[in-house]
Amino acid sequence: MSRFWSGFVKELDPYVPGEQPKLANLTKLNTNENPYGPSPKVIEAIRMAASDRLRLYPDPTSAELRQAIADFYQIDSAYVFVGNGSDEVLGHVFNALFRHEAPILFPDISYSFYPVYCQLYQISFDKVPLNDAFEIDVDNYSNTNGGIIFPNPNAPTGCLLALSDIEKLLRKNTDSVVVIDEAYIDFGGESAVSLVKDYPNLLVVQTMSKSRSLAGLRIGYAIGQPELIEALVRVKDSFNSYPVDSLASAAGIAAMKDKAYFKDTCQAVIDERNKVVTGLQELGFDVLPSAANFVFASHKQAKAADIAAGLRKEGIIVRHFNKPRIEQFLRISIGTATENQQLLSVMDTLV
Amino acid sequence: MSRFWSGFVKELDPYVPGEQPKLANLTKLNTNENPYGPSPKVIEAIRMAASDRLRLYPDPTSAELRQAIADFYQIDSAYVFVGNGSDEVLGHVFNALFRHEAPILFPDISYSFYPVYCQLYQISFDKVPLNDAFEIDVDNYSNTNGGIIFPNPNAPTGCLLALSDIEKLLRKNTDSVVVIDEAYIDFGGESAVSLVKDYPNLLVVQTMSKSRSLAGLRIGYAIGQPELIEALVRVKDSFNSYPVDSLASAAGIAAMKDKAYFKDTCQAVIDERNKVVTGLQELGFDVLPSAANFVFASHKQAKAADIAAGLRKEGIIVRHFNKPRIEQFLRISIGTATENQQLLSVMDTLV
Repeated sequence: MSRFWSGFVKELDPYVPGEQPKLANLTKLNTNENPYGPSPKVIEAIRMAASDRLRLYPDPTSAELRQAIADFYQIDSAYVFVGNGSDEVLGHVFNALFRHEAPILFPDISYSFYPVYCQLYQISFDKVPLNDAFEIDVDNYSNTNGGIIFPNPNAPTGCLLALSDIEKLLRKNTDSVVVIDEAYIDFGGESAVSLVKDYPNLLVVQTMSKSRSLAGLRIGYAIGQPELIEALVRVKDSFNSYPVDSLASAAGIAAMKDKAYFKDTCQAVIDERNKVVTGLQELGFDVLPSAANFVFASHKQAKAADIAAGLRKEGIIVRHFNKPRIEQFLRISIGTATENQQLLSVMDTLV
Repeated sequence: MSRFWSGFVKELDPYVPGEQPKLANLTKLNTNENPYGPSPKVIEAIRMAASDRLRLYPDPTSAELRQAIADFYQIDSAYVFVGNGSDEVLGHVFNALFRHEAPILFPDISYSFYPVYCQLYQISFDKVPLNDAFEIDVDNYSNTNGGIIFPNPNAPTGCLLALSDIEKLLRKNTDSVVVIDEAYIDFGGESAVSLVKDYPNLLVVQTMSKSRSLAGLRIGYAIGQPELIEALVRVKDSFNSYPVDSLASAAGIAAMKDKAYFKDTCQAVIDERNKVVTGLQELGFDVLPSAANFVFASHKQAKAADIAAGLRKEGIIVRHFNKPRIEQFLRISIGTATENQQLLSVMDTLV
């Protein structure tokens, strides 16, 4: 630590993203990227936007991008906030909506960035255990709280919570904001965006990194009633006026408009997931029911850490979390058909 | 205000960026954008990077971009931090390095985002008046402080502080960080990057928005000793792991490498600035000595607000700050030769 640092900096325990190795010929199933590239219309939109006009600042309100997102969900653009990836959006959410007296609540097994945001903004939190089937049980979220957040489908489990359960939670938890982090919703779930008009305490966060194949461009958004959006805008405009650059904006607009490509690639991932699940089960894995573009699996005998090391030797990277309750699990992103077959073949030699 | 908001949100008085009007045929001299587009090599690099690989996350450490910046300044890349525009970099600087007991110091007339960051992070500050010539006098920065920050050249005045004065300040102010915000340094100043190795308390912040014509892509960076950079990385990794997207990274690398284009366009702006200064003086303006890509000018008779309104009627936008000491000034960005001639012609009809 340095005497120049603000006091809290040394206490931070920053988030560690899945590695982005530079090696070629690696089968990268560790960060839940989409195996398919973005829509050709997105590529075209970027090439069109790569012009002299990059000398100009972007629209600080990202009006066109917000409108494209609003059109997709058939809501008003006043319900939409955009940011530099859903991580930035979540950062503003924690700062703008979760700094209250009572602790916020999230699952014990969940996105590992949540406790990091809490450190950054000095927010207290309570972890609510998933049930024995690794599912979220909304009846366990009854304590007084400053907010509730969880991914749906949850990460890294992939398990989906039904919309009826979310609505039940919104009805009983009316005094704080409930954030549904839907990074993976398009791979088999039903979005809570349909509930936003009825619940002033609901905020839905999404990203273009997964189902729209744009992890490289950092576009995230939040959908909620204008009162919640205003809080996010106020914090954003006190931090960085133009978080979404001109190329990301052009790409995001094209991605939201190309519904056919979006639907086809999501379905292809779902079809491949079904094959991976069957293949892993045949090799002796227990696989949690997944509505995401990854599966969370534990082998009946072989140790997860050993399998991960063995896969790595063969050039396949998956993610292993050395944490309580899940140290025997591997999180495996769904790849292309070729990658998935390669995974299952190598796995067959390891277990 | 909403009961869902964190308490501090209602107190925020967010930054208001210069407007980005949608109207065509507008002569936009209000946000200090470069009149020339980015290097053709930058456009080519973006088109090459617009590929299927956008499905993958960027390198969270931005190693190649940091290396390209380090190569330009002939320093080690461990001295370089990058972010989503220099506004985001400054946000992290205020959070990571300026949250101490003592107030931070900055000029009374300066970048109006500084007090906004202070609100966001609850940092106290003292404004140090510029002298009567609207210059920074480092002898006035003697109070105990939690940090010092100012743009050099200063904004919106355009006045340059000599490197010897900065060194004098660094020598006497050894207990807190001195941040030199060099957004406009390439238009006529000498960068303090050359001092970084000798002063552990110096951090230099720059942007690709101005001299590298990339306002649309949001790339900023900070250069300082690794101890300071580490604080910024810790905060960044607790907020957003991947702030610089893959296209911005490719563009930024190409921009740093094309030194000839950079040098030529900066010189062209300087040459045009000289013409604008002469033209304005001939029309009865007092113009502060500018080392930036804008001038700060007040007319001996006509009111600044009236001139700004008159220009606007003719489709020319400049910036007028309705603030103490500078309400009689206009900040006018340097445009292309055609735009500058148009400005002077219209101005001639107004004063």
